[in-house]
Amino acid sequence: MITPIIFIFSLLLSSSHAAVQDFCVADLSLPESPAGYACKKPAAVTVTDFVFSGLGVAGNTSNIIKAAVTPAFATQFPGVNGLGISLARLDLAVGGVVPFHTHPGGSEVLLVVQGTLCAGFVSSANTVYIKTLKKGDIMVFPQGLLHFQINSGGSSALAFVSFSSATPGLQILDYVLFGNNLPTEVIAATTFLDAAQIKKLKGVLGGTG
Amino acid sequence: MITPIIFIFSLLLSSSHAAVQDFCVADLSLPESPAGYACKKPAAVTVTDFVFSGLGVAGNTSNIIKAAVTPAFATQFPGVNGLGISLARLDLAVGGVVPFHTHPGGSEVLLVVQGTLCAGFVSSANTVYIKTLKKGDIMVFPQGLLHFQINSGGSSALAFVSFSSATPGLQILDYVLFGNNLPTEVIAATTFLDAAQIKKLKGVLGGTG
Amino acid sequence: MITPIIFIFSLLLSSSHAAVQDFCVADLSLPESPAGYACKKPAAVTVTDFVFSGLGVAGNTSNIIKAAVTPAFATQFPGVNGLGISLARLDLAVGGVVPFHTHPGGSEVLLVVQGTLCAGFVSSANTVYIKTLKKGDIMVFPQGLLHFQINSGGSSALAFVSFSSATPGLQILDYVLFGNNLPTEVIAATTFLDAAQIKKLKGVLGGTG
Amino acid sequence: MITPIIFIFSLLLSSSHAAVQDFCVADLSLPESPAGYACKKPAAVTVTDFVFSGLGVAGNTSNIIKAAVTPAFATQFPGVNGLGISLARLDLAVGGVVPFHTHPGGSEVLLVVQGTLCAGFVSSANTVYIKTLKKGDIMVFPQGLLHFQINSGGSSALAFVSFSSATPGLQILDYVLFGNNLPTEVIAATTFLDAAQIKKLKGVLGGTG
Amino acid sequence: MITPIIFIFSLLLSSSHAAVQDFCVADLSLPESPAGYACKKPAAVTVTDFVFSGLGVAGNTSNIIKAAVTPAFATQFPGVNGLGISLARLDLAVGGVVPFHTHPGGSEVLLVVQGTLCAGFVSSANTVYIKTLKKGDIMVFPQGLLHFQINSGGSSALAFVSFSSATPGLQILDYVLFGNNLPTEVIAATTFLDAAQIKKLKGVLGGTG
Amino acid sequence: MITPIIFIFSLLLSSSHAAVQDFCVADLSLPESPAGYACKKPAAVTVTDFVFSGLGVAGNTSNIIKAAVTPAFATQFPGVNGLGISLARLDLAVGGVVPFHTHPGGSEVLLVVQGTLCAGFVSSANTVYIKTLKKGDIMVFPQGLLHFQINSGGSSALAFVSFSSATPGLQILDYVLFGNNLPTEVIAATTFLDAAQIKKLKGVLGGTG
Repeated sequence: MITPIIFIFSLLLSSSHAAVQDFCVADLSLPESPAGYACKKPAAVTVTDFVFSGLGVAGNTSNIIKAAVTPAFATQFPGVNGLGISLARLDLAVGGVVPFHTHPGGSEVLLVVQGTLCAGFVSSANTVYIKTLKKGDIMVFPQGLLHFQINSGGSSALAFVSFSSATPGLQILDYVLFGNNLPTEVIAATTFLDAAQIKKLKGVLGGTG
Repeated sequence: MITPIIFIFSLLLSSSHAAVQDFCVADLSLPESPAGYACKKPAAVTVTDFVFSGLGVAGNTSNIIKAAVTPAFATQFPGVNGLGISLARLDLAVGGVVPFHTHPGGSEVLLVVQGTLCAGFVSSANTVYIKTLKKGDIMVFPQGLLHFQINSGGSSALAFVSFSSATPGLQILDYVLFGNNLPTEVIAATTFLDAAQIKKLKGVLGGTG
Repeated sequence: MITPIIFIFSLLLSSSHAAVQDFCVADLSLPESPAGYACKKPAAVTVTDFVFSGLGVAGNTSNIIKAAVTPAFATQFPGVNGLGISLARLDLAVGGVVPFHTHPGGSEVLLVVQGTLCAGFVSSANTVYIKTLKKGDIMVFPQGLLHFQINSGGSSALAFVSFSSATPGLQILDYVLFGNNLPTEVIAATTFLDAAQIKKLKGVLGGTG
Repeated sequence: MITPIIFIFSLLLSSSHAAVQDFCVADLSLPESPAGYACKKPAAVTVTDFVFSGLGVAGNTSNIIKAAVTPAFATQFPGVNGLGISLARLDLAVGGVVPFHTHPGGSEVLLVVQGTLCAGFVSSANTVYIKTLKKGDIMVFPQGLLHFQINSGGSSALAFVSFSSATPGLQILDYVLFGNNLPTEVIAATTFLDAAQIKKLKGVLGGTG
Repeated sequence: MITPIIFIFSLLLSSSHAAVQDFCVADLSLPESPAGYACKKPAAVTVTDFVFSGLGVAGNTSNIIKAAVTPAFATQFPGVNGLGISLARLDLAVGGVVPFHTHPGGSEVLLVVQGTLCAGFVSSANTVYIKTLKKGDIMVFPQGLLHFQINSGGSSALAFVSFSSATPGLQILDYVLFGNNLPTEVIAATTFLDAAQIKKLKGVLGGTG
Repeated sequence: MITPIIFIFSLLLSSSHAAVQDFCVADLSLPESPAGYACKKPAAVTVTDFVFSGLGVAGNTSNIIKAAVTPAFATQFPGVNGLGISLARLDLAVGGVVPFHTHPGGSEVLLVVQGTLCAGFVSSANTVYIKTLKKGDIMVFPQGLLHFQINSGGSSALAFVSFSSATPGLQILDYVLFGNNLPTEVIAATTFLDAAQIKKLKGVLGGTG
């Protein structure tokens, strides 16, 4: 009598189950490693770990930049941990802007779903790459370069951005300069901005020192 | 007299310009390397290399699967070359389906922009992860695993997919089995499908042998 | 008096011992990370962690595929954890076959040690690469692509396969389609197979739904 | 008679020679790939490709920042191409400063060889890490994060910086904002700086628009 | 009328064909990159690029080490280029030995197919891991560590080794010390070996200086 | 009324804080992963984690090699963990030498800060690359290749070395051969050194067996 195929690979498959070689759903309660969050036990993984609904809700744009960024990084969306990919949603009201920022950990592709955006980045060679994007256009921003997006149309805009990392990071220039406790004289020395300008923006962005 | 700052970094910046360390826009006419296409000369790079409008146009779904996939991989969108990221557009008419397939070279995140999809993948441990996704939902499909998407709603659906590679590849199961010159007896031996079933689908998908 | 060299590097070497920068023997009892299993403490590592004898034993081929796959992945062979390499043994009786499958996590090189095999893979461009291999021949199967091996000779065959990953994974097509709880109508919609064919193979491979 | 060992490995060694698997000295005249410059032919490689003397010469600090950066990236030092490492020299006169900048492509470790520096970086979480460094101190600046160095002592300072990339890139904030053709209104919108401030610094740094 | 599926993916598949995202068969006539050889044009690739028969032939062990190493690296076996894997064959006559050596570019797994070997490696922490291996045993040697294999049985031995790189490199210690033009006084100073010992082995291995 | 910008990114920034995507300061008390040490909790990270003063102190060269190596690897300098970079200090008295050694895990760039060194490495193709280096010169030693440094001047020398890994490892040839319990006959068989020579150096370096 012949043994059915289901028994042949049973050793292999049960070992695969233990190994979780396909994915590593983040367990946020465990210590991290340089490669990302530790993995949830395979037996605890369900399809909901691979699905995220948080980008279906518009961000609140009633703020000074008239824009909102909603991330789906590994922290919010554990299923992408270790897979080198993540997403975020950008809502921009009329006049909204995502100020100059970088993602230290990954490249970005922006997809315009609604409205019109003016987007740009600057290279290490200090060349400016700037373009007006309409619905359906995509634009890539290479890793670590300063870039921005402006709603340049007459109506609200919606875009989704993809990253080449599950934890791309986000460093907003104004926040770095004016939103923490970096002393005004250090900022002045390292940016050539006038002290008055620095203090004015610290007032807006909550900076001290 | 003090030399302005613009002269200080000139050597550095001009060398940067030569190095293109920030990006590597694909020059499709040159030989490829294992890391991707060769780079276009920096002086020839313009902002249009970083922007792609091809995803703004709906694909033609008047076909047997009632669906269309429009890629923005490095071949179509040279600006993503070497950056570990790319996109594609999925149009699914009512009843449309993206059949079982894999991306050997990257993980995928699907974003539903319109309609309702039923999507799923199977792990190495042979567990099925399947979910109905509505507008705004995202779902991740880990690298190399067989997965599918079905329009499970009553209207046409639109989705965008992001990949963790500029050249994720695409291997459509039906095409592998029934759309080339692989002999029927080899397919039968390696899939356990009946010869009649194989020949029937070869007829639909253009397979020979 | 001169201090012997053994004292000079003592700080360095003892710190090296703590760091285990050379290898990371898997400790299967600890949480995994996206880069693999956690490392056993250096003091607990012995040469037996780097040696595995399980591939010296022929697999049981008294089954429907007349073949057996014995893995030496990181789960079975903890010494390869994190080193980007692993092995497996393939036994194929007369008429034996390793059905269509993929390794989502790594490329494979097959080495025929005994007998004759017919092996093949299909590329993303849907080209079939198929070849009859005799003793001493090796063949490479690029990462993530569907491939198969058939004993095409008149005697049993033995082969060893190497992978470019310590956890290459294994996704057997028939198992994905007919060996789990994926509903018949979903399989039919995403493969174009007839429902009767699907149900027949579910019966053989233990699928439900 | 026994063949000497020199013949045994001759095939292996001559093939190794062709393969250059150990290093890839940059040939700046050939097209680049995403992994770096193309390799010089092995026969043309000499020890001078692996040695660079340009960091032995003090940079000219008679400029507005009273500092100079001398790179030894792959473009200047072809031997590091593909090896994930490079260096640079920092000269800071009294009062000298290396303004806020990032290296999009790599992490940096600074080594103070002479004098006293105040150095700092800001994380994605907007925490400021700032420290006064004396001779022999080293400090690490993680990839892509904005950072700066200030000569905080009473004499000139000398430091060497190492990078985790052969082409780390360099994006100087003031240059991005005030040293190219980015329009003043775009800068104002994406930084909240006053137009007057922007125009003043454009005058210093050569910006237009 | 419905368009058959073969037209739907035609754009995608033809672009895939151009991109060769699945593999990169080495074209040895083109310049290399840090990631490996340049890729052969897709249209020129055939199944023979993925198959190599050179390991089916026993190496000539009539030499001083009574052993032979036959490589199947990317240079000999172009199909593995860029895939992070390669193989080699080891023939050891009675008394044969593969002297102390390293592979700078990859980890190794050794598989004993015939005979008995004594194999070992030394870690950065200077611990010796040594073991007698019989037919069917496998042993892993982590990247870059000095290791050796000795035929410790009474008959000839055959083994195959796999590497985690398509170009792992090979640095044979005796060759480094005694088989090139490194001056005897430099060798003596950097190894503490006696000049007489060095000169004796230079005589055997062809060293000069 | 408009909400200040500080509230807009609060969700994003607080999640960033949890994710530590920018760096992973080593927590030496936790289990390691193949990618390095586990990360210290973000809240516990301070600027002192990113600064190391141990390289400011000269090593003790009153020993047989008249040299000292002081490492700043991840074990000593936790801030570089996961960042692909580390440093070490080399002190060489008159006549001092850093004997033949390899770093299995990374490439090295040496920077001469004081004195004159003769440094060299040997490639897989067995070519010797040797050069006398003076103050300010840098030289690169590709990953895993045997190399050495000799104080070839009339005064003490000081150099700093950078690595392309946070844990490059260090394998000192003499230590591998003569400083552990590897039996003399195994060493003789795998190096062709005379037993008397081996025993003499075992006496110096503490080897047994």
